[in-house]
Amino acid sequence: MSRIEPTGSINMPQRKKTLLVALGGNALIRKGQDGTIEEQFDNLKIPMSQLGKLSREYRLIITHGNGPQVGNLMLQQECCDALPRLPLEILVAQTQGQIGYMIESTLDSELTALGIDEIQPLITVITYVVVDEKDPAFKAPSKPIGPVFTERQAKAQPYPIRKTAKGYRRLVVSPNPVTIVEKREISRLISMDFIVICCGGGGIPVVREGRRFSGVDAVIDKDLASAKLAEEVGVDIFVIATDEKGVALHYGTADQTFLPTLTVSQAKDYLENGEFPPGSMGPKVHACISFIANGGEKAVITHLKDIEKAVEGNAGTHVIAG
Amino acid sequence: MSRIEPTGSINMPQRKKTLLVALGGNALIRKGQDGTIEEQFDNLKIPMSQLGKLSREYRLIITHGNGPQVGNLMLQQECCDALPRLPLEILVAQTQGQIGYMIESTLDSELTALGIDEIQPLITVITYVVVDEKDPAFKAPSKPIGPVFTERQAKAQPYPIRKTAKGYRRLVVSPNPVTIVEKREISRLISMDFIVICCGGGGIPVVREGRRFSGVDAVIDKDLASAKLAEEVGVDIFVIATDEKGVALHYGTADQTFLPTLTVSQAKDYLENGEFPPGSMGPKVHACISFIANGGEKAVITHLKDIEKAVEGNAGTHVIAG
Repeated sequence: MSRIEPTGSINMPQRKKTLLVALGGNALIRKGQDGTIEEQFDNLKIPMSQLGKLSREYRLIITHGNGPQVGNLMLQQECCDALPRLPLEILVAQTQGQIGYMIESTLDSELTALGIDEIQPLITVITYVVVDEKDPAFKAPSKPIGPVFTERQAKAQPYPIRKTAKGYRRLVVSPNPVTIVEKREISRLISMDFIVICCGGGGIPVVREGRRFSGVDAVIDKDLASAKLAEEVGVDIFVIATDEKGVALHYGTADQTFLPTLTVSQAKDYLENGEFPPGSMGPKVHACISFIANGGEKAVITHLKDIEKAVEGNAGTHVIAG
Repeated sequence: MSRIEPTGSINMPQRKKTLLVALGGNALIRKGQDGTIEEQFDNLKIPMSQLGKLSREYRLIITHGNGPQVGNLMLQQECCDALPRLPLEILVAQTQGQIGYMIESTLDSELTALGIDEIQPLITVITYVVVDEKDPAFKAPSKPIGPVFTERQAKAQPYPIRKTAKGYRRLVVSPNPVTIVEKREISRLISMDFIVICCGGGGIPVVREGRRFSGVDAVIDKDLASAKLAEEVGVDIFVIATDEKGVALHYGTADQTFLPTLTVSQAKDYLENGEFPPGSMGPKVHACISFIANGGEKAVITHLKDIEKAVEGNAGTHVIAG
C-alpha cells in the first residue's frame, strides 16, 4: 500500500482524549489496615479494573500518592542505626519503584483479563520534579506522611507532628512543583498510546544547581504535581481518586454538605475561608483550580470506586470554570 | 514543507548500533565505603561521563545491579518490628526506583554538561521479569546480597550465608530469567532513540499464574537478565562493567592470568572446571556466552572506568564466537 494512500488512515488510531487519574495513598492501604503486601495488591484491583476499561476510550496517565509507604521507609531506616540513612528524595524514588510496579502489574493483569493486553503498551516512568529552593515551604514542614499515631505516641516523636483528620501524623517539607523533568518523554509516550504510570508520590523533588539536578529532602504533593504534569503534557480530563465521594462543606460536622459541582471562584472563596484543610482536600481543590484555569476540560474529585462514573459525569465533585 | 518531500529525511537519525551496559553494584558503592548517598552519586560519575559520550554514537540501554541496596532494605525492615515486612520482589522494585533515579539524574547532568541534552530523551523503566516457578534455584539460595559480614557476625545471622571473594554474605534464591515483561515497550523506546535505564537488580521476579503475574521472593542475576533483554530487544554490543579489569584464570592466586579474549568453547570449559565462581565472574561469563550464542556482535567484561575503551576493543575480556 502506498504511504500516501488515504485509506492508510484505517490503521491509524483515532485521536483519543487524554485522561489523568491521580490515585490517593488509600488505593493501596486503607484506613485501619496494617498495609501487608496482600492487602495492598487486593485494594489496587478496585481502581485498576476501572482504569483497564477506561484505557479503551482514553489515553491514560496514572499518578499516585506514597504517604504511608514513604513514612514506613523513614521509620525503617530510623530503626536501623548500622546503615547510613538516605535522604527523603531517595525514599520517594524507592516508593516510585514499589508502587509503580504494583500498579503496573495489577493493571497488566486486568488488561489481560479484559483481552486488551495486545493493544496498549504499559510503562512505569521514574519521574523527578523541579522545585524552587526559595520556596517558603522549606521553612515550615506541612505535609503529613507515614503512620497515624495516638496522642501519646505523637508526643514521643522527635519530629514535627500535626493532628490531621486521620489522627496524629509526622510532617515533612512540601514545596510546590515547578516543572516535571520527564515531561517531554511522557508526552511522546502518550502520543504513541502508551499507558503511563508516573509522578509517583508527587515526583522525586530536585532543585537545579547550575547545569545539575540535586535532590532535596522533601515530598511534593501528588495532586499539585499531577496538575502540573497535566498542564505540561496537555491532559483533557483530570480525576483525583480518594477515599471520599467528593468535596464537602463543613466536613466532619453535622452540617456536612456534599458538593456535586464547584466553580473556580467558589472554590477559591472556600479555600480562603479555610473550608478545605491543607492536609486533606486543600491541595486537591487547588490542583483542580489550576487544571481548569490552564484550559483543562474536566476536573473531578471522586471516590476510588467511582472513577468510571466520575469520568461519565455521574459521581464526584466537578470543579468547573466560572 | 510537504509531508512527502524527500529532504524530510535530513531530520531522520541514522540507524545507530545498540549498546547495552550492565553496571555492577560497585558503580554506586565501592568496597570499603559505607554507601552514603554522597558516595553513591560521586561514584556514578565515572560510568555516566563515559555513557554520556557513548550515547552520541550508540543507542543506549543501561541495566544495573542492586546487591548492596536490596540487602540494606532487607536489614532495615528486619530492624523494625512495628511494620509489616515486604517480600523481596517489592524491595527489588524499590531499588529500581532508587538506583534508576540516581543513574538517570547523574547521566542527565553529564549529558547537559556535554551539551547534548536536547537530542536524546532519557527514561527509567520499572521492569519485571518472568521466572519459572519450577526453577531448581528455588530449592537452594545461591545469590550473595547485602553487607559483608565478619566470620563472627556471619555466625549470628539467622539466614543462609556464604563466604564469597568479598567476605561473608547473605544468600537469597536466584532463578533464571525467562522473559522480560516490558521487552516490547523497551524495543519501541530504543527504536525512537530513547536512552533507557531498565532491568534494575535483574528485574522484579514474577511468575505467571494463569492470566496474572505474581511476585516471588527472589533476586534475578542482573547479568543474566541483561543478556536475556539483549536477546529479546536486539542489542549489538554488550558490556558488563564491574570492579575487575576483566576475567582472569586462577583468580586471587599468584598465578592469576588476565584473559583479553575468551572463546565461547574455552569459556564453557573453564566454567565446567570451576574457574569462575557463581557469586562472582560465573554469571557474567554465562551472560556473555548466551549473548554471543544468540548472534550478538560483541560481549565484553571490563572495569567501570574502562567502558569506553572496552567498546573500542581496547580493554576488558572479550568473549568471542568459537
